[in-house]
Order: sequence, then structure tokens, then C-alpha cells
Amino acid sequence: MQRLRLALPPVSVPRTRYVHTVAFYETDGMGIVHHSNHVRFLELARVAFLSEHDQPYTAYMEQGFHVPVIRVEVAYYRPCRFADAVEITCWLRGARNASLAFGYRLEVQGQLAGCGISEHAIVDREGRPVRIPPSMAGRIDRWLGRNEGPPTDP
Amino acid sequence: MQRLRLALPPVSVPRTRYVHTVAFYETDGMGIVHHSNHVRFLELARVAFLSEHDQPYTAYMEQGFHVPVIRVEVAYYRPCRFADAVEITCWLRGARNASLAFGYRLEVQGQLAGCGISEHAIVDREGRPVRIPPSMAGRIDRWLGRNEGPPTDP
Amino acid sequence: MQRLRLALPPVSVPRTRYVHTVAFYETDGMGIVHHSNHVRFLELARVAFLSEHDQPYTAYMEQGFHVPVIRVEVAYYRPCRFADAVEITCWLRGARNASLAFGYRLEVQGQLAGCGISEHAIVDREGRPVRIPPSMAGRIDRWLGRNEGPPTDP
Amino acid sequence: MQRLRLALPPVSVPRTRYVHTVAFYETDGMGIVHHSNHVRFLELARVAFLSEHDQPYTAYMEQGFHVPVIRVEVAYYRPCRFADAVEITCWLRGARNASLAFGYRLEVQGQLAGCGISEHAIVDREGRPVRIPPSMAGRIDRWLGRNEGPPTDP
Repeated sequence: MQRLRLALPPVSVPRTRYVHTVAFYETDGMGIVHHSNHVRFLELARVAFLSEHDQPYTAYMEQGFHVPVIRVEVAYYRPCRFADAVEITCWLRGARNASLAFGYRLEVQGQLAGCGISEHAIVDREGRPVRIPPSMAGRIDRWLGRNEGPPTDP
Repeated sequence: MQRLRLALPPVSVPRTRYVHTVAFYETDGMGIVHHSNHVRFLELARVAFLSEHDQPYTAYMEQGFHVPVIRVEVAYYRPCRFADAVEITCWLRGARNASLAFGYRLEVQGQLAGCGISEHAIVDREGRPVRIPPSMAGRIDRWLGRNEGPPTDP
Repeated sequence: MQRLRLALPPVSVPRTRYVHTVAFYETDGMGIVHHSNHVRFLELARVAFLSEHDQPYTAYMEQGFHVPVIRVEVAYYRPCRFADAVEITCWLRGARNASLAFGYRLEVQGQLAGCGISEHAIVDREGRPVRIPPSMAGRIDRWLGRNEGPPTDP
Repeated sequence: MQRLRLALPPVSVPRTRYVHTVAFYETDGMGIVHHSNHVRFLELARVAFLSEHDQPYTAYMEQGFHVPVIRVEVAYYRPCRFADAVEITCWLRGARNASLAFGYRLEVQGQLAGCGISEHAIVDREGRPVRIPPSMAGRIDRWLGRNEGPPTDP
């Protein structure tokens, strides 16, 4: 689980904090959130990240882009329960020609509940890989905390 | 709940029995199948009905048809639990120009667990109502137990 | 569908408006919200209603009560899509010894998207029917718009 | 993604092949299975593995054991679509005092669709870690292809 040890984004990178309140239908027979739902929570935070830092996901779709998941990894440290306010922090971990990786940290009441990574292709409507959309490409260095000019972040 | 009292199809109509084994992820914090999943179980049985008595749902889709739900109703008599083999019986209850209604009966180990009704429009790829597809139309009377000529069913 | 025609609560009854933003994972291969998810949306609004007008659902659970669904009905008028803000209005439609019925209206951007009814038993941890919990019972007349002093409703 | 490169179990270890036919409600607005559902497919295969090679998961539950997921990882190579028969092969990858790891390979019509790993704690009803249940412990070496005596497997 080496790759998941770093459950915190680098200090200077843009991030989004999304709060999801656990629905009863997300719990399972163990009385906790079923682990598959955490993968959905990552999606909620990722969509919020793109919306906050670039454009709504619907805009990508209208422009003919999709950002399907090609790998996902979640580590579970503490169960989430019905009515918990799960705070999911999302940031960009890396980017290449036609792929992106996001990092995630999940907290409930300030306690680490889990963390995750998702890797994505960028594809067109037919599912063919394409280069990262221009609006996104122009922001990626900043999202990764690169080329900041003189560093000003704490 | 008058409409749901009849949890049995008429004797002579075609039906499909579909068995779904309850997954753990379908249970909720009460330790039983979350009630929204029964709506999905109806879909499983309906898709099986169309496949058995007409053609796979994928064939409708390739021909440009969709059969969206315009109303659904489920009555719950007994909880279903993890690993239960839920037997869903599906039959056609009625049909009009551009709509269909299916009936459902859910059983676990021979005991009535619930019943349901779903009503459907027939639409094209753009979501516009269309007439019932020919392959389906030719079978509907039989599916409803009509025009049987001399009755031969038990 | 007679029972679902009344998609508006009586003027004077307490209600809760809950806004749910459609997640991508709630859409299906038709590009719209899968109809089973509307049943989950009703739950979100019902839980919010109880929390706003009585107590959090977790408090019922701690007191040993559950409010399982014994019947649900949804009518779909317009598809909901990814990123839509679905506004679900929930109110109490009726109550008897050990059961409750809620009504629901779903809107997207002011347009009616659907409506629903759910009926519930009140049960203890073992699933046995019990009388309506005291905190709830004391409020039910008001939730139904009854015992308001001189009647003023149309 | 180094850890996921090995999408095949060692030749001699017990495995289970579970076939899941994709439901329409498992597809998303891209027209493919939503990636969170693959995590559920792993669960279906894991439950089938335990049932085939040890005992039904319900028996663990009755004995007071749960096997919650503490880490999951899925790589997606090809989208799965509605009505696809997804064949999930599951085997044990490793075991320690109170944890287990399973490997998975997903195929559709003989083509690799993805692979996965899940890591699990063994806990009691209160969620406290416990040692691996005896029925399982006695089989683990065999599940891992160890202590086979003179090798007889191909």
C-alpha cells in the first residue's frame, strides 16, 4: 500500500473539499458504508474539483470529452456510517499526454477515514484516447503546483 | 394498494421466472435488501421476459427503441436477505399504443416477498414516444392471454 | 395512476424541500437517472423531513425504531440528468397505528419531474411492528394539517 | 500499477470463476458499466470463492466473523457493457494473522477487461480484528498453493 501512504496533497496545490452526507441506502448489512460507495465518493469530489478549478463536467461532455477511470485504489481506515458528513479532499497528483491521476483523502469529523487514487484516460465520444482538453491543459501545471513563478504559497 | 392485490399472473399468460441471488452490497443497515433494489430486481426479470418471449433488450436498443419506466410500484411483504435466492415472476399486464405494463411477483423459498407493477413508454433514441416495435406488437395479444383461439392452456 | 395525480401537498402542511444534485454514477445507459434512484431520492427527502420536523433518523435508530418501506410508488414525468439539481418536496400524507405514508414531488428547474408515495411500518430492532414513537405521534396531527384550531384550509 | 500486472493466478492455486451478466442499471451515462460496479463484481466472485472452497459467507456471519475490505484496487482495460457476461476469476493472493488478500481477473468473451486486488481484515461483530477463522485457516496454505507435499498439479 506504499502508494497510498501519502494521504495529503502537497501544500501548494489547488484542491477541492466536498462534503457528502452518507445516505441510508449507502450502508450495508455490516451497518457501515459499503466499500464500493467510496469509489463513488471519489467521483463526487473529482467532479467538484473540475467544476471549481476548470469547468463543469457537463461542459467537457458537451465538448466531446470523457474522463473514464482506468485505475482506482482506495484504502479504508475507519468505517463511515449513516448520516456521517464525509469530507473528501481531491487534488491532481499527476498528468501525462492523455491521462490524469487524482489523489483523495476522506475524513469524518476530522479523523482520517480513508484515501484513494484514481487514474483517468481522456477520450472522445467514441472512447478513443485524445490529448488533454485545452482548458484543462492550461491549468495542469498550476494544479500540480508547478511553474508558479516566484513561489508565493506558504 | 388495491392495484397490487393481484400478485399472480392470469393462468394462461406467458411469464418468465428469473432468480436473483442477493448480493451483500444490496443489503442495507437494517440487514435486509434496501427497498430501492427491488425496483432493480423487477428490471432483471423484465429484461429476461423480453429476451425469452421476444428478443434481447440489446436488440431493441440496436433497432433504436428504449422502454423507459413511467411508473413503478412495489409492495414489500417480507424482507429479502443476503444470499436469498429471490424468484421474480414477470408477465405482461397490459398494452396500449406506446405503452406497456408488467406485473411482478417476488418469492423467497416459496414465500411471497413482494409484488410490483411497472409501466413503460416506448421511445426512440431521442426519447420521443413511438409505437410498439413490430416484433413486440405481434406477440402482445398472446402475452396478454388474448386471441388464443380455442383455449388450450390449463 | 389515479393516486399519484395529486403531486402537491395540502397548502397548510409542514414539508421539507431537499435538493439532490444528480451524480454521474446515478445515470444509466440511456443517459438519464436510472429510475431506481428516484426511490433513493425519496428516502433522502424523507430523512430530511423527519430531521427537520422531529429528530434525526439516527435518533429513531438509537431508540430502537426503524421505519421500513412497505410500499413505494413513483411516477416519472421527465427524465433527470447528470448534474441536475433535483428538488424533492416531502410531506406526510397519512398515519395509522403503526404505519405512515409520505408524499413526494420532484422538480428540476421548476418543472415537475415526477412524484411519489411511500408507505412505512414502524418496527423495533427485531422487525416487529410497534406503535408510532411518542415524539412522532405528538406531531402527526400537525404534520397532517389537522387540529389546527378553526379550520382554514380550503 | 506494478502490483496489478499479474492478472493471472499462479497455476496451482484454487480459484473460482463467477459469471455476472451486466444489468442495465449497472451502466452509466457513458453507456458502459460504471467503474464502481467492478468493485461489487469482485465481491460477487470473492463470496463465491469462499462458498466454493470453504463455506458460505452467511456461515462466517453466523459464527460472528466479518471480512471487511481494507484496501481495493481495480485496473480497467476494456469497458463492460449491458448484457455482457463478465467472467471474474478470484483466488487468494496472501494471508497474515488477521488479514487476507484476493486477486481478480475480469474477462468478457475471453478478452481481459480488468483486474483487481482486495485486502481484508477479519473482524468480529463489533468490528475488532480477530485471527482467521479455523475453517479458513486450515485451508489457506492450500489456497496459496503451499504445502502441497509432492507437487502434483500441472
